[in-house]
Parts: sequence; structure tokens; C-alpha cells
Amino acid sequence: MTKPYVLGIDIGGTNSVFGIVDARGQVVASDSIKTQKHNNFDDYVDELHAAVMRLLKDNDAEDKIHGIGIGAPNANYYTGELVNAVNLPWGKHVKIAEKVSKKFGGIPVAVTNDANAAAIGEMTYGAARGMRDFIMITLGTGVGSGIVVNGQLLYGHDGFAGELGHVIMKRNNGRMCGCGRTGCLETYCSATGVARTAREFLEIRTEPSLLREIPVEDITSKDVYDAAVAGDKIAKDIFEFTGNLLGQAFADMVTFSSPQAFILFGGLAKSGDLLLKPIKESLDKNIMECFRGKAQIIVSELKESDAAVLGASALGWEAKYKAE
Amino acid sequence: MTKPYVLGIDIGGTNSVFGIVDARGQVVASDSIKTQKHNNFDDYVDELHAAVMRLLKDNDAEDKIHGIGIGAPNANYYTGELVNAVNLPWGKHVKIAEKVSKKFGGIPVAVTNDANAAAIGEMTYGAARGMRDFIMITLGTGVGSGIVVNGQLLYGHDGFAGELGHVIMKRNNGRMCGCGRTGCLETYCSATGVARTAREFLEIRTEPSLLREIPVEDITSKDVYDAAVAGDKIAKDIFEFTGNLLGQAFADMVTFSSPQAFILFGGLAKSGDLLLKPIKESLDKNIMECFRGKAQIIVSELKESDAAVLGASALGWEAKYKAE
Repeated sequence: MTKPYVLGIDIGGTNSVFGIVDARGQVVASDSIKTQKHNNFDDYVDELHAAVMRLLKDNDAEDKIHGIGIGAPNANYYTGELVNAVNLPWGKHVKIAEKVSKKFGGIPVAVTNDANAAAIGEMTYGAARGMRDFIMITLGTGVGSGIVVNGQLLYGHDGFAGELGHVIMKRNNGRMCGCGRTGCLETYCSATGVARTAREFLEIRTEPSLLREIPVEDITSKDVYDAAVAGDKIAKDIFEFTGNLLGQAFADMVTFSSPQAFILFGGLAKSGDLLLKPIKESLDKNIMECFRGKAQIIVSELKESDAAVLGASALGWEAKYKAE
Repeated sequence: MTKPYVLGIDIGGTNSVFGIVDARGQVVASDSIKTQKHNNFDDYVDELHAAVMRLLKDNDAEDKIHGIGIGAPNANYYTGELVNAVNLPWGKHVKIAEKVSKKFGGIPVAVTNDANAAAIGEMTYGAARGMRDFIMITLGTGVGSGIVVNGQLLYGHDGFAGELGHVIMKRNNGRMCGCGRTGCLETYCSATGVARTAREFLEIRTEPSLLREIPVEDITSKDVYDAAVAGDKIAKDIFEFTGNLLGQAFADMVTFSSPQAFILFGGLAKSGDLLLKPIKESLDKNIMECFRGKAQIIVSELKESDAAVLGASALGWEAKYKAE
């Protein structure tokens, strides 16, 4: 008989959130540990295992886990490894599926990157239910993406497809990106990118702004949002600039996969019309005629913590990798 | 019992080529008619039908056609229609699947655009055999594309996905494109785009060039090729410029679907290392680290006429649409 639950684990740069999820996508119970406490992955897995076992015991679910799904930055669906995950402390190649499965006594494990996990969550339980073609865009510290075509996650031949935060938006004099190149979408349109834009605008422009009251290196995208809501002209222009670039990028993405919708997720996606209006206007202006008016722009309906855990957990139902 | 043949039809701007194809992908016989002779689609189909029936009769194949596959510019796989095919004379919406199936007595018909048909041909019978993730790029009058992911053609939610000739390469002061926008890849990297580059380079630069012997409006990409082969510096720089832009575009496409290979097809693809070398160098220079060295650049092995007919014919095996 199929066991009634799966375990979803979302490994973020700060917290690792995990939840017991039933077949209808209800999070039965969840908890978290700090991700960065251990520099050795085995120690991290030991602590994760102990915390999960407590949660399972408290919920009478110790022998009821069908599979484990894990979402983590740079996790590869095909190989089960974390590869060059610069925000995680465990080295260049971590055999995460193998080590977790072994620690959990051979329960099957599947892994994918965090944006793909969020896309699966959205498709299974959120705004993308019933959609066969959509693009999930996560606007957080970076810009991530999960692409669904023909109802399937697009992994590419090596499992690394869907790095849309790194399409080039400025081919000359673009901003330096953490990936080593310049001009990537995420240098402009992540939360960090918005803060960079604020610093640039404040330096170039002379008019007063609420943002000038904050030490320039401390400005966050939340500060820009608050200032814009208070009517600050520079702050509103920063959102206009950000949305305009996202719309241009989305127009190019449409020529690739012609999605039914873009689903926005992450802190910046909560900016409402401040961001959505310029995105929609820019998409409409920049899109090829035959696609105009088709792709919707939708903000995720799922709680941020839930989407990643639910998405990861959905992988658990089909997880095949078992450690011996 | 399954009938032993399919009919593949490639409707190009000049010629409509059709072939009887067996289950192993052998073109048993083929012929063609002129595409533009009739402004009325019904008249075109009458002539096509007569020509096909002659070919079937000559090959004793009159009742042996399982299905018909058609590749044509702007043909939509989902709706069976030609939509806004500007190089074809039959109007904005043509119900091509319905009309062809009716004329051929109810044989099932499937249609797709010409670049997708070439991709199917390449996947079924050419350089992409066994590949589940690749991108077909056709470098002809325009730049077309057929994208295969997870072993399936990527059609998008509306059947129009894969318009990679229209990703924006220059966001400011880009060249005017037939699509109504500016800066599209195909304005630079199609055969026509190469000729435009030649005119620009000849105007801006002052050194002698073999190309200056040709009236400037008559220069074709073939002239540029011939001059480059003869060692002409400007002509070689034009290929360098073209390949550099293609490499930049391919680097962005890799962040989307991480293909195992790009397969180049069409007149310009026959330019050999003049084009391949700068593409490979530019791709290597512009690609994100985690993808470097992975995607191959391959020139199609199929004869140009065969790829489109074979690809279209492969659709015929699964064609479902039948006129009553």
C-alpha cells in the first residue's frame, strides 16, 4: 500500500523548511532548522534527520513517508547533486539525494532547484493548476525561474535549464553579475537589483527623495517600495524601470515557449501594481504581434514558505532514487 | 492494417515540394509545384491534389497513404491553420488542414511550421537522432527555429512557440524587422541580414573589397561568402559579426532550455568555419559557466529539400485531423 505522506524540504540560504504533506497537498505539520550552522554536509543531514524524526513522531507519521522531495539552489534533478551552490556552505559537489536517502533508511529522494520546486508547487496546488505551459519567475535576492512546457518541468539535457535570471538585458556596460558576466536580468530585477537601481538613481538625479534619508548602502527594495507607496517620485521611477526591463525580458521569453502565464513569486512580487503595471505595459509594447494580449501576468497565490515545500513534496511522490 | 506510406508536403514561399515517404524515412518519390501561381487557396489545393495523385499513380501508391503532414510558414499545429503567413498569397487565416483533408477524401492531416518540420526531420532521420533536447535554427531569408525539449516539439500554449528569429539583440537603434519591431536576431543573422550588414560595412569602412564590384543593392549573402572564401577582409568581418551575434543569442537560449545541440540549417549554414568558428567562440565567451562546453553546434546532414519533406511526413503518421 502506498504510504500516505511525502516529506517536502526547501533548503534556502538561511532556513531549511520541511513539511509533512498529504496526497491532497495539505501541509500536515512543518518545522525548520538553520541551513548554515554546519560547514560539513553530513552534520547538516544529521541535524535535519533528528528534527524531521521529531516532527514525524509528534504527528504519528514515522513509517508513513512515501518519498522525500528536496528543493535547493543549484540542485540537479538528474544527478541528485548540489553543484556550485554559492550560497550554501558544503562545497562544490554535494551528493544530496544519496546522503539524505541513506540517512532516512532508504526512503526514495528526488531533488530539484528551488525555482523549479516552486513551479511544481504552483502547478500542483497554486495559480498554475491546469496550465500546461507557464513560466515561474522568482524575484528574491536573485531572479530564478522554473519553466513548464507540455505540462512538464523543463530540465534540459543536463538538468540545469531555466536560468532566466541570467539572460542578458544590457549587452554593453551592463551591471556585474554574481555569475561572472555582466548585464544579466537579475542584476536589475532582483530585490538586490532594485536596491542597486536606487543607488544609481539617487546619484544621478538631484531632486529630493524619501530614500535620501537612508544611508545609501543600507537601502533595500522594501525601502524603495515604502517610499513609492508614500508617493516618492524617484522610488516610483525605480519600479517603472524594473518593470520595463522585466516586460522586455518576458517578451523574449514568449518567443521561446509561448507560455499561458508568467507567475511571479518572492518578496518583490508583492509590490502590486507598482511593479505589475509597468511589466504589463512593457510586455505589451515589446511583444511580437502574434503573441500580444495572450500571456497573463499573475502573482503567486501560495504562501512563500508553502510553495517551495509543497513543490518539493510533490516530487516526493515520484522520487525514485534510493540509497542502498 | 496500417497503410505503408505518408505524404510530406513542404510549402515554401516559392515551391511546394511533396514526397511519398515510407516507414523507414525513405523518400519513395517526390515532385513539386509553384506555390504562388494561385491567389485562391482552393485553386492551389486543386493543383496540388492533381500533382500528388499523378505521383501516387506513377508509384502504385494511390490507396496507401496513412496520413499527410504539412510544413508551412506560420502553420499552427493546434488549429491546423495558416495564420498571417505574409509570404504566402492566400489571406490571413487559411484552414489548411481541413481543406487538404477534404480534397484528399478524408485522409488525416497534421500541419506545423516549416522550422518545426525541419526539427522533426532532423530528430527522426538526421543529426538529432536520439537527442531529447536540441534547437533547430534555420538561417534562410529569415531566421526560424524549432525547439525540442524532453523529446517533444515545443509548441507553447497557442502553438506559436519557437520564434527565436525574433529575440531582441539590439534594444536601442536596432534594425527594422518585418515583424514591426526593431533589433530582432533575424535582421542581423538571416541571409538577408548578412546582406544588410555588408551594405553597412561597405558604407562605414573605406578599405577596398571585392564586394565593391557588385551594385550595393544586389549584394547577397552568397556574394559575401564568395568574397570571404577569396580572402576579402570586409567579407570575413561580416561573418565574424554575424557569428558573434548568433553566439550571443545562443548563450541566452541555453539559459532557457539547455539543449544538447544547436542544429543549423539553410543556405547560410553551409558557410562552414567562416560562420561556425565565430559562433563557437562567441558562445563560449558569452555562456554562463555551468553550461560552458556542453552544447554542440552542428550543421544539418539532411539535404535541404529532404529535411522539410521528411519532417512534415513524420507528422503524417500521427495526424488525427480528418475532414468529414
